[in-house]
Amino acid sequence: MSNAAETLEGWYCLNDFRKIDWTRWKTLSIKQRQEAIEEIFEVWNQWTISEEKVEGSHALFQIIGHKADIMLMFLRPTLKELTLIETAFNKTKFAEYTMQTTSYVSVVELSNYLPKGEDPYRKPEIRARLYPKIPETDYFCFYPMNKLRQGQDNWYMLPHEDRNQMMRSHSLIGRKYAGKVKQIILGSVGFDDYEWGVALFANDPVQFKKLIYEMRFDEVSARFGEFGSFYIGSHLTKEHFNRLLQL
Amino acid sequence: MSNAAETLEGWYCLNDFRKIDWTRWKTLSIKQRQEAIEEIFEVWNQWTISEEKVEGSHALFQIIGHKADIMLMFLRPTLKELTLIETAFNKTKFAEYTMQTTSYVSVVELSNYLPKGEDPYRKPEIRARLYPKIPETDYFCFYPMNKLRQGQDNWYMLPHEDRNQMMRSHSLIGRKYAGKVKQIILGSVGFDDYEWGVALFANDPVQFKKLIYEMRFDEVSARFGEFGSFYIGSHLTKEHFNRLLQL
Amino acid sequence: MSNAAETLEGWYCLNDFRKIDWTRWKTLSIKQRQEAIEEIFEVWNQWTISEEKVEGSHALFQIIGHKADIMLMFLRPTLKELTLIETAFNKTKFAEYTMQTTSYVSVVELSNYLPKGEDPYRKPEIRARLYPKIPETDYFCFYPMNKLRQGQDNWYMLPHEDRNQMMRSHSLIGRKYAGKVKQIILGSVGFDDYEWGVALFANDPVQFKKLIYEMRFDEVSARFGEFGSFYIGSHLTKEHFNRLLQL
Amino acid sequence: MSNAAETLEGWYCLNDFRKIDWTRWKTLSIKQRQEAIEEIFEVWNQWTISEEKVEGSHALFQIIGHKADIMLMFLRPTLKELTLIETAFNKTKFAEYTMQTTSYVSVVELSNYLPKGEDPYRKPEIRARLYPKIPETDYFCFYPMNKLRQGQDNWYMLPHEDRNQMMRSHSLIGRKYAGKVKQIILGSVGFDDYEWGVALFANDPVQFKKLIYEMRFDEVSARFGEFGSFYIGSHLTKEHFNRLLQL
Amino acid sequence: MSNAAETLEGWYCLNDFRKIDWTRWKTLSIKQRQEAIEEIFEVWNQWTISEEKVEGSHALFQIIGHKADIMLMFLRPTLKELTLIETAFNKTKFAEYTMQTTSYVSVVELSNYLPKGEDPYRKPEIRARLYPKIPETDYFCFYPMNKLRQGQDNWYMLPHEDRNQMMRSHSLIGRKYAGKVKQIILGSVGFDDYEWGVALFANDPVQFKKLIYEMRFDEVSARFGEFGSFYIGSHLTKEHFNRLLQL
Repeated sequence: MSNAAETLEGWYCLNDFRKIDWTRWKTLSIKQRQEAIEEIFEVWNQWTISEEKVEGSHALFQIIGHKADIMLMFLRPTLKELTLIETAFNKTKFAEYTMQTTSYVSVVELSNYLPKGEDPYRKPEIRARLYPKIPETDYFCFYPMNKLRQGQDNWYMLPHEDRNQMMRSHSLIGRKYAGKVKQIILGSVGFDDYEWGVALFANDPVQFKKLIYEMRFDEVSARFGEFGSFYIGSHLTKEHFNRLLQL
Repeated sequence: MSNAAETLEGWYCLNDFRKIDWTRWKTLSIKQRQEAIEEIFEVWNQWTISEEKVEGSHALFQIIGHKADIMLMFLRPTLKELTLIETAFNKTKFAEYTMQTTSYVSVVELSNYLPKGEDPYRKPEIRARLYPKIPETDYFCFYPMNKLRQGQDNWYMLPHEDRNQMMRSHSLIGRKYAGKVKQIILGSVGFDDYEWGVALFANDPVQFKKLIYEMRFDEVSARFGEFGSFYIGSHLTKEHFNRLLQL
Repeated sequence: MSNAAETLEGWYCLNDFRKIDWTRWKTLSIKQRQEAIEEIFEVWNQWTISEEKVEGSHALFQIIGHKADIMLMFLRPTLKELTLIETAFNKTKFAEYTMQTTSYVSVVELSNYLPKGEDPYRKPEIRARLYPKIPETDYFCFYPMNKLRQGQDNWYMLPHEDRNQMMRSHSLIGRKYAGKVKQIILGSVGFDDYEWGVALFANDPVQFKKLIYEMRFDEVSARFGEFGSFYIGSHLTKEHFNRLLQL
Repeated sequence: MSNAAETLEGWYCLNDFRKIDWTRWKTLSIKQRQEAIEEIFEVWNQWTISEEKVEGSHALFQIIGHKADIMLMFLRPTLKELTLIETAFNKTKFAEYTMQTTSYVSVVELSNYLPKGEDPYRKPEIRARLYPKIPETDYFCFYPMNKLRQGQDNWYMLPHEDRNQMMRSHSLIGRKYAGKVKQIILGSVGFDDYEWGVALFANDPVQFKKLIYEMRFDEVSARFGEFGSFYIGSHLTKEHFNRLLQL
Repeated sequence: MSNAAETLEGWYCLNDFRKIDWTRWKTLSIKQRQEAIEEIFEVWNQWTISEEKVEGSHALFQIIGHKADIMLMFLRPTLKELTLIETAFNKTKFAEYTMQTTSYVSVVELSNYLPKGEDPYRKPEIRARLYPKIPETDYFCFYPMNKLRQGQDNWYMLPHEDRNQMMRSHSLIGRKYAGKVKQIILGSVGFDDYEWGVALFANDPVQFKKLIYEMRFDEVSARFGEFGSFYIGSHLTKEHFNRLLQL
């Protein structure tokens, strides 16, 4: 049986992390700063229109620590739309006062456990997960990850059934956090440096820690999880974004 | 038994490491420099008010070597407060003359060995450790760490009892340094790139070396400890901070 | 039997990744920007002449994410021609507004399975693959890779026959994607930091993910594939390139 | 038996590596450059006074290659003194034309093989090694190192006796180079990213290579030595320093 | 038998890699650029005098890709001479328009298989290899490497005879490329971050690939070779250098 057939793909995703150059931002006059913010709000309005037409979703977060100040997350039906969004943002006045510190390119991914013959892309409950609205929780956590291929701990050399069983155990832990943590699984094989990106959403950030820590003892993470950098931040409404940029 | 239930979480923590751009700092006039310092002191006063209300704690350190010049450490009840503190600092005049070289985001963490049924968050001796005042010792040491998951040395695949026993032996070494070294253990699973941050406080910095070196022969460190960068520095009072910035 | 005899080499290849400095680009007047674009188009015309004479091939792509904004790919009969192209590009006005973030130096490579005595470089179907025209698909994916040499997973210590058998299984997966994904295999032993570069071309980028993910379960990737960074982008015609640089 | 009791600690050590910004240095007038050099010489005089009072030692080296142009090495009784020296240097005019590329924080360390009951810190021959004068040889070599903790090659899991025996064999090689190479062993557990720093001094730099290469076949290096970057340079007197900075 | 006795050392070597800042170079007038080039040619003449007196050798190469634009290679009897050359170059006008991206410090090294009693440094054929003239081929390839020390693949734990036998097999492959590829083996234990540097010279760059690829299947590379970055470039005469810098 083909392994590649196991996954379903939905909207493409761009996570765009930027640091604000406060020293240069301060050199602008109040009027110039407000114009720059207004220009972002106009672009933001276009993102909102796409969201309302269910042609994508977007969210902004303030990231804590030195890795970034803000993170923009976009979901769109095609990679080209994401490229256009990134380019348009780069051409704004505000972008001149930011530096893109990192980014992540991926696609919303689901495992497909449906019986043969059914078209999963027609099932409404699957469509809702492939083309999701980014949750409006207070906090956000993102990290990329691989499945390890090292000596005896080689995920890709395991029998199909062993992998399925470990993933089932893994998702049972996830279900314990239903209502506390929402997640979007992003496949990035061929798109970025890790195989997956994980975006978590919660109102209480301790739940990120409890969920990931509990999973770490699960064999699929303990033996096969290889993790990149972790990013954590809080949701930015237009109002928060405006306040962040006031001096 | 759930592994995630083993931990208690207290205040959130931000360690913010910055390098001073001395060349640009020198371009300011004495008056401009003094104003920039005064502005920091005003923010610092607000931190002190939080400390007095037991709504957090803070400390500044001068870091030796190229990794940073100063480190600001903040403990607060919510991640959002830490974000606000970081943003407010970034908007000060002084911040224009610094570069954030690294940072660490975490939460004060305790292992929970209480019998079921008791609410540890109500015990005063536990509260004192979850919501600690940062010790005012002369020296400070910080490093992030993981528990290794590699081949035969996979901490997360060990039986619960083995892990407990190794951690007990580990803490016995720590107790030998009681009175010499104080520590705050910071959990950072889901928050930053390592699983824990360790903040040590002592008046004699050789004690950091002796403690960590002795622990390294302990199985839990020898086989399972994976360490990031080490940062060492000395405590900065307002007076020291002011003297540091005089030319 | 010599292992080195197994490969055939065609055109040399340079992948040149650049980030655009939008802030400085905006400081130019419309006229200056247009002149800079025209200058690139003149160089581009020379590339096209080489392509028409079948003395090489070239393509430009817009890369999504922080790693680069554009990627220029050149195939030429000699390394010196690639050096001249890179130097000429560096001397253009437009290049002043770009930063070379990374690059990859390699040569088109084929495995040689022909019987002894035949000169593969005379076979038209082999020549077409050694001196290829870069496909004009909508999307492009590039990544460098090694064959692992670690403990029991040491590709270069395997018997010749085992390696051949694994590569055959590998290429069978590739054939399932015929018509969906085109590839150019680039050898870079002695030329760059990895042993191979892989350039994939498709109109539907999900096919990159499906192909690479399916291959990852194949023993040659699962046990022996060591991958570098992944870059993904969309094809840039002159018209697209011009539009990208308009503000 | 406690492992931490095995070490004796002497003076703290700072190795401060800097690259000179020649382009900006050239923008100064001869007079400005000479004033900047004179200012360094005044600070240098204070270092010499400390050296004469046996309250520390110092040396400057010109480093070859891109990693640094100069390296300043200081030994002092306390970490705070090192911090003050670094800060004072950062405030000089000359420092504006340098960039701190890396640094190393440590403490002079000796293994203690004395019988119980004797106070090693009172033995003159031990004091001479804990509070050493930095040798005035022509060449200098520095590298940081760890003892490996990986699978079967885990130094910290070995029996005490095995470690002692390997270290004895190791020091026998070192003795063969007596008169050719002098060394200062620097402990940095808890102070910097590696566990030790090694500073070697010789008039013939080939002796560094011969010593380290011969040791590499010794089990303690072969199985357990994990090395960081290597830095090599030549001793700078005030006269050499002055000549280096003339244009 | 001592392992360190196995090597002979000749001239010291500096490989100095630099990127040209084209944007700033263009700000110079034709006259200023020509003066800067002439100044380099004067220094170059001094290098040529050393070469004619057989007091060293030198060569310049244009490196392809983002890692560097040019590489200067110097062989000299002492490290101090290399330091002086590097410093003198840094003080030129042209150097202001370059950035040293990396470098490599080493010494020409030969294995010594002569019978005891003979002084290898007196043998003319050995002297020719220890104090070589850098070949004037069209292309150049450089990479640093280690012998692995990992688990079962620990070069430095092998019996002397096994190592000798593997090195002999290795050199047999090298001999097959006699007339096609010339090499200079550079020892760098104690001098730089890898144990060796390898400099290869050929008129057909595919020969670099064929040689290194064939060697990779040899046990000494397959099991024990650990490679750093690869740099490839073409030889720069004064005329080529001048043409490179014309706009």
